[in-house]
Amino acid sequence: MSKVRVVIENVTPRVDCGQFPAKRVLGESVAVEADVFTDGHDSVAATLFYRHESTPEWHSVPMSALINDRWQARFTVQALGHYFFTVAGWVDHVETWRQGLAKKYEAGQDVELDLQTGAALARTVSERVRDTDARTLKEWANAVGDPARDREERVVLAQSETVHEIARRHPDPEIVARHEPPLVIDVDRKRARFSTWYELFPRSASPRAGEHGTFADVEALLPEVSAMGFDVLYLPPIHPIGATERKGPNNRASCAAGDPGSPWAIGGKEGGHKSIHPELGTLEDFGRLISKAGELGIEIALDIAFQSTPDHPYVREHPEWFLKRPDGSIQYAENPPKKYQDIYPFWFETPDWNALWAELKSVFDFWIAQGVRIFRVDNPHTKPFAFWEWVLAEIRRSQPDVIFLAEAFTRPKVMYRLAKAGFTQSYNYFPWRNSKREIEAYFKEITSRPVCEFFRANLWPNTPDILPEYLQFGGRPAFMVRLVLAGTLGASYGIYGPAFELMEDRPREPGSEEYLDSEKYQVRTWDRDRPSSLKEFIARVNRIRRDNRPLQSDTGLTFHTVDNEALIAYSKTNDSGTESVLVVANLDPHHVQAGWVTLDLESLGLPLDTTFQMDDLLSGARFLWRGPRNFVSLDPGHSPAHIFRIRRRVRTERDFDYFL
Amino acid sequence: MSKVRVVIENVTPRVDCGQFPAKRVLGESVAVEADVFTDGHDSVAATLFYRHESTPEWHSVPMSALINDRWQARFTVQALGHYFFTVAGWVDHVETWRQGLAKKYEAGQDVELDLQTGAALARTVSERVRDTDARTLKEWANAVGDPARDREERVVLAQSETVHEIARRHPDPEIVARHEPPLVIDVDRKRARFSTWYELFPRSASPRAGEHGTFADVEALLPEVSAMGFDVLYLPPIHPIGATERKGPNNRASCAAGDPGSPWAIGGKEGGHKSIHPELGTLEDFGRLISKAGELGIEIALDIAFQSTPDHPYVREHPEWFLKRPDGSIQYAENPPKKYQDIYPFWFETPDWNALWAELKSVFDFWIAQGVRIFRVDNPHTKPFAFWEWVLAEIRRSQPDVIFLAEAFTRPKVMYRLAKAGFTQSYNYFPWRNSKREIEAYFKEITSRPVCEFFRANLWPNTPDILPEYLQFGGRPAFMVRLVLAGTLGASYGIYGPAFELMEDRPREPGSEEYLDSEKYQVRTWDRDRPSSLKEFIARVNRIRRDNRPLQSDTGLTFHTVDNEALIAYSKTNDSGTESVLVVANLDPHHVQAGWVTLDLESLGLPLDTTFQMDDLLSGARFLWRGPRNFVSLDPGHSPAHIFRIRRRVRTERDFDYFL
Repeated sequence: MSKVRVVIENVTPRVDCGQFPAKRVLGESVAVEADVFTDGHDSVAATLFYRHESTPEWHSVPMSALINDRWQARFTVQALGHYFFTVAGWVDHVETWRQGLAKKYEAGQDVELDLQTGAALARTVSERVRDTDARTLKEWANAVGDPARDREERVVLAQSETVHEIARRHPDPEIVARHEPPLVIDVDRKRARFSTWYELFPRSASPRAGEHGTFADVEALLPEVSAMGFDVLYLPPIHPIGATERKGPNNRASCAAGDPGSPWAIGGKEGGHKSIHPELGTLEDFGRLISKAGELGIEIALDIAFQSTPDHPYVREHPEWFLKRPDGSIQYAENPPKKYQDIYPFWFETPDWNALWAELKSVFDFWIAQGVRIFRVDNPHTKPFAFWEWVLAEIRRSQPDVIFLAEAFTRPKVMYRLAKAGFTQSYNYFPWRNSKREIEAYFKEITSRPVCEFFRANLWPNTPDILPEYLQFGGRPAFMVRLVLAGTLGASYGIYGPAFELMEDRPREPGSEEYLDSEKYQVRTWDRDRPSSLKEFIARVNRIRRDNRPLQSDTGLTFHTVDNEALIAYSKTNDSGTESVLVVANLDPHHVQAGWVTLDLESLGLPLDTTFQMDDLLSGARFLWRGPRNFVSLDPGHSPAHIFRIRRRVRTERDFDYFL
Repeated sequence: MSKVRVVIENVTPRVDCGQFPAKRVLGESVAVEADVFTDGHDSVAATLFYRHESTPEWHSVPMSALINDRWQARFTVQALGHYFFTVAGWVDHVETWRQGLAKKYEAGQDVELDLQTGAALARTVSERVRDTDARTLKEWANAVGDPARDREERVVLAQSETVHEIARRHPDPEIVARHEPPLVIDVDRKRARFSTWYELFPRSASPRAGEHGTFADVEALLPEVSAMGFDVLYLPPIHPIGATERKGPNNRASCAAGDPGSPWAIGGKEGGHKSIHPELGTLEDFGRLISKAGELGIEIALDIAFQSTPDHPYVREHPEWFLKRPDGSIQYAENPPKKYQDIYPFWFETPDWNALWAELKSVFDFWIAQGVRIFRVDNPHTKPFAFWEWVLAEIRRSQPDVIFLAEAFTRPKVMYRLAKAGFTQSYNYFPWRNSKREIEAYFKEITSRPVCEFFRANLWPNTPDILPEYLQFGGRPAFMVRLVLAGTLGASYGIYGPAFELMEDRPREPGSEEYLDSEKYQVRTWDRDRPSSLKEFIARVNRIRRDNRPLQSDTGLTFHTVDNEALIAYSKTNDSGTESVLVVANLDPHHVQAGWVTLDLESLGLPLDTTFQMDDLLSGARFLWRGPRNFVSLDPGHSPAHIFRIRRRVRTERDFDYFL
């Protein structure tokens, strides 16, 4: 230890001191940075080491100094699962010598002894390297150290990059500092980062009014879902629904005969979490749905809600997995004074916890075996973090392409902890961030370090549980602007349809965010082809997402100033800085709003004094902008937003041959 | 592990993930915070555990919830050395039950089963507690669980704080999460935080022109140093000075007979780091100086500079501690193309490094044995961090009251690393932070987390190496304002005198920050009683520091807005918020500057609409201010700053008896 003079601090990316992995997707470049420095004035060298979990072999990349003792190197993740990386640094005596020699020679000093010193250094290095390298070093040392040779020639030789490169690859192990333990990157497939979700209730998929929909009906809707540009079709739970204490329409405490109950009240006489509600179809029907969807580039995401009704087979077969009350009855869910008698939560502190954990894991395993690769997990924040950390890691160890979306509408630290524990994507506060100030503050937080390293937001303007006030009162422009925000602020977003595209906006009662006649408790029939539907608009936004790489990642987000609180402006730029999209949206669904946008030109890679072309991908209109300040006016009745592709360079007459 | 549902994150204070201790001084209160939370809606409890290194016994303090899942508790450090602390948390089933019961009862629900549940919970707890507590719990359980008793009485009993307090002290160990390993606080004595330094060259202490000063001459100056209000007297190295390659006045390459050389050129025929330069006196004289100083409340701080001249005994006795050049000569210090042939640096990568480290440690040990408890360490950034980490910890293990000031004028991360490695105080960039913007940015950085947890700035407006440009051109007002800034921005500060109070401002040459005729290379005679001396002003500032607790700590600093870039305003408030000092300074030494100060009243604990009295402790003048905006005008020719004590409450007629 004691001859190690280099220290390494603040290695990034790193989550909670290395306790959790940072997340990336296949093909992404990981920029590793660290503070690497030593005492005194000697030169330092640093190397990034990385390896995939499947191999013990480390790859190395020399790091470059940025400013202020910060070093950087990159590697690309090309396999799913875990990568390990770390940083090593050491005092580079050869480089220190080389620079000193150059300065002294330039100052006209006698460098004979310095040339001897360099020769001695090279000979020392040659002792720890192999054949060719050793020979190169020795020959070089003999030449540089030979007083009989021409002095100037030796000084030129002393600067040889070949020799320094060999030396840098073979530092004296006694002086190398290495950050331990290595840090971890968890690599997902690309859809973990860029995905476009559509949620529907299969039982409302029938085109025939009053009929209970089936998987076959969902199959028939696939072309429409695909035409709208979605690549994930998410279904609420498809399992048998409990009869005991079943809720009626609009969450009424009692239900009438024929009321279908909530799909989240899982477990009936027909089975539990590994069974299918008979009215939806069979396991084979479900398999065909997955396969047909796949043909259209759509994946089926399944809802996993770990809770039981009193009718669930678990209650009979494993009463030890439920907390008992003093009278021997099972404790139903409560949020005092509210009671949910139709739901029995699992008792995670049961002495039999290990069997319970194993069984819950087997639920995922079962559906994975049916071909499901994406799960939306219901209320994960009401189950222990340790359970999630275990089950997600266990599953991904053998199935690293499986994606988990956490539906944890809860306090921020709980939400973040679930993401750290391994959830691929997360629901978040987007539904309640409507003003410019709220949106800017929240998106700065989740797209900056440390949050962006582990938390991937999936933005939902609505869900079956959330009809935000903004949509209740804003009409068509509100739906349009929230869709644009979701689809351009978030590389992953989703809508609950057809309630969204048909602009369903009636709450159960004033002040409530519950839908009136919610599909959670009843079968609905939708007129999907109503002319007012936002289908076409949604399809356009999703096409823009597919065509513009900056919208496929949550990095590169910059907010720009607008002198009108109702207008928000932000840009997204891809990693290499070659493409930028600028969104300007009118958050006021009722009035025309206009104002001056002041662009942060540096973030867009634009020179201060230049003209650039703004192509509005929504309307097809084109604008010429110049410099940072430009005027925008948006009429919500027409289109509440611009999604501009910035064309960096506008031709001038000098670009044409005939100008010459 | 698996029944543990609570997680603990982001425990503070913590430096570099717990790699280094946070610093405090005796008697300070440590506010420990952590994010503590669980899944679901259950109540959580958290406890702070702490102990001094001298005892294995942990003390515990219940933590309180702040907002957003953040918890806090405090403990006071009452012994020098290391304290360990950690945080434990668990799901508080008893509290969850108690709250649920209250809500249900209020809602008029039947709570009979809930009362039974509570009784069962208490019986479970009673199994893991002792005599009295167990009896209390059982009696309580019998009462609460007895259906024959009055229901309302049982509900009241259920809220018993006694019982819940017992339960909270005895959580089920199977469900307790504990942050591991514990974190460390390094406790210094108070002078580590609040100290007022005066540096002088003993050899220039003689009142007789041309004579080499002695320790006895320094002794004679002690009353003056004390009258100015200093409590640390720092002496440059007092060791024998080398003769080989000795530098002449103004750092000339050659010296004449009688030139004394630089005190930092350590080692001559009379000895090395454990010897005293004969012209200064003997070890006994030095001991007497320490003791006389002590009588005036002044400590002597010694300069330790780990480097040797060619004449140092080490060169002869331990040639293996120095790097050899190919011709067998010892490598002198270089910063190519500059050469420092009078200085031989130690070779810390020598194979004999462990003997070298031990010898260097023995230098500190030697002077500690003579009674020195404060060291100013010269250029620590040119020696390995690992050495400092080792030697400072080793010394402080047995002598935890020893203070080390790092003179590391170097890059920021190197400077910070030395502080983390164990230096008590640090030189810093204060000499070069002169404009409002520079001062605000720098002091925000060093008084905020994470820096403030490990880095204690000691502010020097000048040193023998640094005569800042600002002092060269600003005249008397510049010296005054830099003194006020140093003494009020920094709980620790120092001046190099008498150059400072006599306003020595001539550089060696234009553009240089070296003093002309620097004491580093020659003996100077000073007219300490010159009427223009800033002695009295310095004494006043130091008295203000002693009388006002907010100035004795680097916490509680807030900058306030002034609409004039030449005026800076900042306040310091003590931990409990009872005392505040506001400084307004004119940074322009040439012109009267005036402007409106906008106070951050919240940081001062002042209501928005109130009148408060501002007592200028420098001039004795009093001002009545009201609300946030108040006018200030400062004439540098008179006094370039106000140091206000804020008297929060101003009497009104209602405060007098006769008003009633």
